[in-house]
Amino acid sequence: MTSNALSDALSNVHAATPLIHCITNFVAMNSTANALLAIGASPAMLHAVEEVAEFTALADALSINIGTPSSTFAEGMVSAAHTAARTATPWVFDPVAVGATTFRQTLSERLLAFTPTVIRGNASEIMTLAGLTGRGRGVDSTASADEAMDAAIALAGRQHCIVAMTGEHDIVTDGRKHLRLYGGHALMPRITTLGCALSATVAAFIAANDDHLSATAAALACFAVTGEQAGRDAAGPGSFQVALLDALYQLTPASLAGAARLEVLA
Amino acid sequence: MTSNALSDALSNVHAATPLIHCITNFVAMNSTANALLAIGASPAMLHAVEEVAEFTALADALSINIGTPSSTFAEGMVSAAHTAARTATPWVFDPVAVGATTFRQTLSERLLAFTPTVIRGNASEIMTLAGLTGRGRGVDSTASADEAMDAAIALAGRQHCIVAMTGEHDIVTDGRKHLRLYGGHALMPRITTLGCALSATVAAFIAANDDHLSATAAALACFAVTGEQAGRDAAGPGSFQVALLDALYQLTPASLAGAARLEVLA
Amino acid sequence: MTSNALSDALSNVHAATPLIHCITNFVAMNSTANALLAIGASPAMLHAVEEVAEFTALADALSINIGTPSSTFAEGMVSAAHTAARTATPWVFDPVAVGATTFRQTLSERLLAFTPTVIRGNASEIMTLAGLTGRGRGVDSTASADEAMDAAIALAGRQHCIVAMTGEHDIVTDGRKHLRLYGGHALMPRITTLGCALSATVAAFIAANDDHLSATAAALACFAVTGEQAGRDAAGPGSFQVALLDALYQLTPASLAGAARLEVLA
Repeated sequence: MTSNALSDALSNVHAATPLIHCITNFVAMNSTANALLAIGASPAMLHAVEEVAEFTALADALSINIGTPSSTFAEGMVSAAHTAARTATPWVFDPVAVGATTFRQTLSERLLAFTPTVIRGNASEIMTLAGLTGRGRGVDSTASADEAMDAAIALAGRQHCIVAMTGEHDIVTDGRKHLRLYGGHALMPRITTLGCALSATVAAFIAANDDHLSATAAALACFAVTGEQAGRDAAGPGSFQVALLDALYQLTPASLAGAARLEVLA
Repeated sequence: MTSNALSDALSNVHAATPLIHCITNFVAMNSTANALLAIGASPAMLHAVEEVAEFTALADALSINIGTPSSTFAEGMVSAAHTAARTATPWVFDPVAVGATTFRQTLSERLLAFTPTVIRGNASEIMTLAGLTGRGRGVDSTASADEAMDAAIALAGRQHCIVAMTGEHDIVTDGRKHLRLYGGHALMPRITTLGCALSATVAAFIAANDDHLSATAAALACFAVTGEQAGRDAAGPGSFQVALLDALYQLTPASLAGAARLEVLA
Repeated sequence: MTSNALSDALSNVHAATPLIHCITNFVAMNSTANALLAIGASPAMLHAVEEVAEFTALADALSINIGTPSSTFAEGMVSAAHTAARTATPWVFDPVAVGATTFRQTLSERLLAFTPTVIRGNASEIMTLAGLTGRGRGVDSTASADEAMDAAIALAGRQHCIVAMTGEHDIVTDGRKHLRLYGGHALMPRITTLGCALSATVAAFIAANDDHLSATAAALACFAVTGEQAGRDAAGPGSFQVALLDALYQLTPASLAGAARLEVLA
């Protein structure tokens, strides 16, 4: 994968303004919508079982995040994922804190049956989904990305999907080809729902690009590069958030290609 | 309408600190509450059918936005709108993405029966409500404000209400008298829920002013003027949002009257 | 209580990174999670009755805020509070606008039965809980902190808990020992959900410290000190919010001890 693949992927998002249907948690709804608008996509946040199937069929991609689940939301998520599978709409699954409760594990199993295009999580979430023992407590991961790499590859192979595992370094794999991304900033774990916004951004990239592996890597590279930029002058998480949205908005395909640090592992 | 009418309308909001009951979507709740506080109103966000009727009766105005509807929220909205009609409390209806799903259309029809004081939407939402073919997909409008002007006038006449249709230019009409407002900034569509916050701001203005047409125009003028100001130095949507809240807070009646660009069409 | 007690309390939060289970209102979820991350705690926002008991048992403290209640949320709150009582997990109760509707009063009575460790509210909320006549309308208090002091002491005595009553000055009392805190900034009431974020911050402090009275005072002192700092250069509520998060993140135990203004009343 060349840096051209990353810049092309961002150009295609800019050109397509893909409509992204997001069913996400309450904490992340506003920041996710703003991240999508900043990168050039068109967000739509709706979740009710009364309307999601109708809407998913219109959308260019779907992003489902189980951060604040409930029985009613679960029905909307299943209906949307089912519609995505039926209409061949690409979709991203973000299994927030799946290791924390039985309710999340059961819901995740129902959703995995609808074959997500990409699973985006931290190391402990990916390890839990892969059937390994996650050691995270709650939403933050305590396993290193390297330790969890085997889990990511196994999960991608079993689910026939792409796994994007984010942490200090990011890993993207389809089970056969593996990429590692560097970048970001130490302040990023101190800001809520950046990972959720990233999952929806992956949805925008797979909506606008046919090569889903490089599209996923490009979405992660956008956050790694703009996170690095935002961290340069930020005095803390408040100014970091402002700078990150500005940087996502200003990011050009050329600057993405120039600043991304991507390593092809296999 | 003179620029004095606009400055008086803002002075009255500052003097009254009107209590605004908002039933809005999950994405917009925080930004809407902050916009109301910045402009000098007192927001209250609550939606449960168990309590909304009791609360709407206490409020100075009500704002209903269907951005993330569900069956339970729908019951709260209907109860609140019914209370507003019964107690002659002015209220604003924001029909987010009404063209996108049948569920939203049915809910909107139920709410319109309680005679909103103002309907605030983009061109495709107004056209859908007017029974014309909306061409928007999702929450963003693709019809121009000029094309949709006839729909706005027809809707206002049929519903006996004020229609505020926002876009590159804004239109305010009660079906007989029509106003056009200029201002804002190209970054505004790149920030989520500004329109939702504007609808609640209209509620604050009609709560504090008897002339609802000029009050609605004044609320729109506040966003047009402060949007223009915020855009001057913003590096992107992050810094724009910060600057907009600061500008709404700093806005004086005199600076509103001096900067607003309002054209009386009929 | 010495200023050492405040700096020790913050050091303990930094060292423990306590996991705080928050069931809060939709308006406050994002800002509360960000405040907890900035101060060094680990937030988890989840509410469904299907999973809260399992999660509360894992958490270091619980924070319940009834700002946007519903029947389904109420069941989650009761289940979480019950678990906290059963597992001796410290918890904070934030009775937002309890005087406004019967639904909130009934829910508050159910929750008080599970003996919160701390109740954090404004004067009219505390007065309502104490059985006195609250004169607030909605979420903003119109009674002065001094007038409500008797109510706070009575409530603390009756509930065998700590009461933290915030306003122009803050009062912390366990019914016998009373503290008054000075600081903050006039812009703080113009920003939504700062009080909600403070309640969750109190939860972080009582999770990491055994002396709950000084821990509560320390949490309030963090907001009083950083609020004062953030107000110094803020042009309005937008820049204030950014500066407050940055200041919470940068706050050191030494700077807290140096800047806090705490008066022991009895």
